[in-house]
Amino acid sequence: MAKLLAKWERLCASSRILRFVDINLRGVAQVMFQNNPLTGALFLAAIGWGSYAGGVPQVAIAGLLAVVVATLTAQWLHVDEASLAAGLYGYNGILVGLALATFLAPGALLWVYVVLGAAVSVVAMLGVANAVKPWGVSALTFPFVLVTWLLLLATYGFSGLIGTALPSGNVVTVFQPYETSPVKVVDLVQGVLLSISQVFLKGSGVAALLLLAGLAVSSLAAATFALAGAILAVLTAHLFGAESELITGGLLGFSPVLTAIALGTVFYQPSLRVAAYTALGTVFTVIAQAALNVALTPLAIPALTAPFVLASWIFLLPRQCFEPVTTAAADDVKPGATGIGERTIS
Amino acid sequence: MAKLLAKWERLCASSRILRFVDINLRGVAQVMFQNNPLTGALFLAAIGWGSYAGGVPQVAIAGLLAVVVATLTAQWLHVDEASLAAGLYGYNGILVGLALATFLAPGALLWVYVVLGAAVSVVAMLGVANAVKPWGVSALTFPFVLVTWLLLLATYGFSGLIGTALPSGNVVTVFQPYETSPVKVVDLVQGVLLSISQVFLKGSGVAALLLLAGLAVSSLAAATFALAGAILAVLTAHLFGAESELITGGLLGFSPVLTAIALGTVFYQPSLRVAAYTALGTVFTVIAQAALNVALTPLAIPALTAPFVLASWIFLLPRQCFEPVTTAAADDVKPGATGIGERTIS
Amino acid sequence: MAKLLAKWERLCASSRILRFVDINLRGVAQVMFQNNPLTGALFLAAIGWGSYAGGVPQVAIAGLLAVVVATLTAQWLHVDEASLAAGLYGYNGILVGLALATFLAPGALLWVYVVLGAAVSVVAMLGVANAVKPWGVSALTFPFVLVTWLLLLATYGFSGLIGTALPSGNVVTVFQPYETSPVKVVDLVQGVLLSISQVFLKGSGVAALLLLAGLAVSSLAAATFALAGAILAVLTAHLFGAESELITGGLLGFSPVLTAIALGTVFYQPSLRVAAYTALGTVFTVIAQAALNVALTPLAIPALTAPFVLASWIFLLPRQCFEPVTTAAADDVKPGATGIGERTIS
Repeated sequence: MAKLLAKWERLCASSRILRFVDINLRGVAQVMFQNNPLTGALFLAAIGWGSYAGGVPQVAIAGLLAVVVATLTAQWLHVDEASLAAGLYGYNGILVGLALATFLAPGALLWVYVVLGAAVSVVAMLGVANAVKPWGVSALTFPFVLVTWLLLLATYGFSGLIGTALPSGNVVTVFQPYETSPVKVVDLVQGVLLSISQVFLKGSGVAALLLLAGLAVSSLAAATFALAGAILAVLTAHLFGAESELITGGLLGFSPVLTAIALGTVFYQPSLRVAAYTALGTVFTVIAQAALNVALTPLAIPALTAPFVLASWIFLLPRQCFEPVTTAAADDVKPGATGIGERTIS
Repeated sequence: MAKLLAKWERLCASSRILRFVDINLRGVAQVMFQNNPLTGALFLAAIGWGSYAGGVPQVAIAGLLAVVVATLTAQWLHVDEASLAAGLYGYNGILVGLALATFLAPGALLWVYVVLGAAVSVVAMLGVANAVKPWGVSALTFPFVLVTWLLLLATYGFSGLIGTALPSGNVVTVFQPYETSPVKVVDLVQGVLLSISQVFLKGSGVAALLLLAGLAVSSLAAATFALAGAILAVLTAHLFGAESELITGGLLGFSPVLTAIALGTVFYQPSLRVAAYTALGTVFTVIAQAALNVALTPLAIPALTAPFVLASWIFLLPRQCFEPVTTAAADDVKPGATGIGERTIS
Repeated sequence: MAKLLAKWERLCASSRILRFVDINLRGVAQVMFQNNPLTGALFLAAIGWGSYAGGVPQVAIAGLLAVVVATLTAQWLHVDEASLAAGLYGYNGILVGLALATFLAPGALLWVYVVLGAAVSVVAMLGVANAVKPWGVSALTFPFVLVTWLLLLATYGFSGLIGTALPSGNVVTVFQPYETSPVKVVDLVQGVLLSISQVFLKGSGVAALLLLAGLAVSSLAAATFALAGAILAVLTAHLFGAESELITGGLLGFSPVLTAIALGTVFYQPSLRVAAYTALGTVFTVIAQAALNVALTPLAIPALTAPFVLASWIFLLPRQCFEPVTTAAADDVKPGATGIGERTIS
């Protein structure tokens, strides 16, 4: 694997086009904190398969377009080279593209929206990274959440853009547990897999396996924590009596999966205490997911990865309680989006 | 009084169990910014009486359990000793426990929720204290508000937890003043007392007197500002024509009480200008309370002490306009939660 | 023009009353980032005309009262002299006064509200300026938005204050494009002009021309960007199919106008790249305006200039991508609210 990557790195060094491809692949990989082009390629395969199998090929195309627009915008804005090369200006872009094409009906204005959203995601990434720099935490996917929420909300005021897959605005009421039939083991397994694939807004077991493979080629620890986080999230949601459909669809688990990877393998030195802390953070992300689902009911927009961002910021801010990942150790665990705070300004 | 406390301090120094009790008592006292175990004991008596008289003994038990879990969590996270000993990691915990048991129906999952919420309240306290450190303000009760809001919102998506005392989700409409019958003096007195007891989510005059006694043994100034703040809040709410039931139930006054203590006795050097500034802040907290009651109507959750946090942050951020409490003077006025900003990181 | 201003400056130096008038005029001018008393006088003429023509003279009076109360409050709080003299403690106050008198019914409590809101706007200005200081951005009109939102929300709980012109609380639904009749050129011109006058909550073409004149006497660049921003906003809103009535009423354009002036002429050194960046920010402010209109539907309050604040903060935070305005260059472009961050604390 290391040899293959070294060869690819030499090829990129000699070709501006391959370097551009490399940056975009790393951008895709950074959605799950990996700085690795092979991971990005496997993630793209997962997105492609999920879109094809779901009958929505335009979603994968919008994601691709968005990451390319984001990278070009970042270059136009003269961002710092190291963060750009690590793909840190691309991961919000691809998520914006995937989300817009998932929730809005196809049409000419959708593509205007994707290009606009991808470009602004880079501005928002620079802005959020600067904003959270005094606190020593990463921007995570907050730029994606912020930009996409605004773009989706605005569609209710624009007759040119129709939100076909958006939830409907409603008054908050207590969930009636008519669907909590005894959950079968097969449903739980599906819930675990789809919790992983929903990170990229896909409900597909094959995509989940491709994503796990992509994580594994870059960091076995990340793949392990993703799987463990998904299992813990599904069990927690089941314990509290969440809606079965949401659990088995992976819709309560994708944010906890990201929290588990971030707390367990990216920002803190691994240890038993960190693992216990990560478990607490993962369980709390399930609460945050359910809470934001409710809080956004009157606004008729999806929570996206906001529960992950909120819970992870809460659990990352008390840095003094744990040893942070040092630069040396970071070579193993792939620091992901963590570095942008230090690098963007200098 | 001083002798009694000195004797207690000697006892604590010789016993780990008594030291643990001391930390938890101070945690209870810090809800109103007092670093004093006797104050904590009187506050606990108020909580116990209020719960017993209201027929909800589980509320007091949940509060006690939560403060103990919070202290244990803080020890597990190796927080700084000085803040821990002053009870600064306990006051959010007890409020989380009281609020969850007040708004949710009893049951096994409620206790899971109380333990989880109390543990996360410590993480949130560390996180918020770090977040507001660059601004030189205290975390106040924001960790309690944040964690409790998420836990309460999530219950609408969990069939295992029922919010029996939560408000119902609704569309914002203008308040129809059918209940503003001429308020009698006895109602105003009740409103003042219950504004103080509602700080601990209790509607009890006896509890209010116990709380005032608890403040007085620690700081006469704090007791005075609590009472004055409650009177000012009730008069302001009445002037603007708020619902009589809310006023006499103390539900528009508990946040202003906290603002009055915080601005008037904890964070600024007392003076006439500070008293006038505190009065402005207290009146504005009544506005903020009414505003957040409305803003949270679509979400069907209570405002908790968010109006106090919001108004106090607005009025504490312009530190340059007033002399802050110095360490020397702080010996008299009990700096409460103010110190955590400086102490947690070092 | 320069001679006239120099003469006025000499008069102010010799009279405390004229100096007070000067501070208040600059406060009005700072709503559009100009530090110029003549601009303030022309802006006041626009407000007066708009209020008179609209049959609501109390709006102009409330604005005047509010800016005076704000200046007196700032003096009482011993704010820094340089920011005070530049009018930086007045612009939020006048906006609070105009907004309260625009959205609430006249009456004795309205004037209590105006005085209270104007005084708190200064506290909020000091607080927000301190809060955003670590990020190197200006407070913009966020203090106005924050204080006015709270005051307006609270009226739903106060029977003494009636929100006659407030939107009604409702569930979010998709906009039905029944009003998108083919927009005529005359409508677009009206939309452009009213986008400028709505910065001061007025729907008047004459007021818009007076405002443009006021900008031009201080900075031709600001007048140009205001006009260009309004045109771009109206075209963008039309492209996405926004409601015709909102477009021609200027209600989707006033925030973009402020973004265009701020990004294009106040905070960054003018250049072609900055102009392109400003255009992107202006287009995104239209999205943010539509989004916040929807987001505030359940709360039944107007977005005010929140879309401008949100979009401008996102686009101002990545300072490293552009050259900031230096003190030397700032003599030409009038740095407006930018300086308060550095000056308030010292």
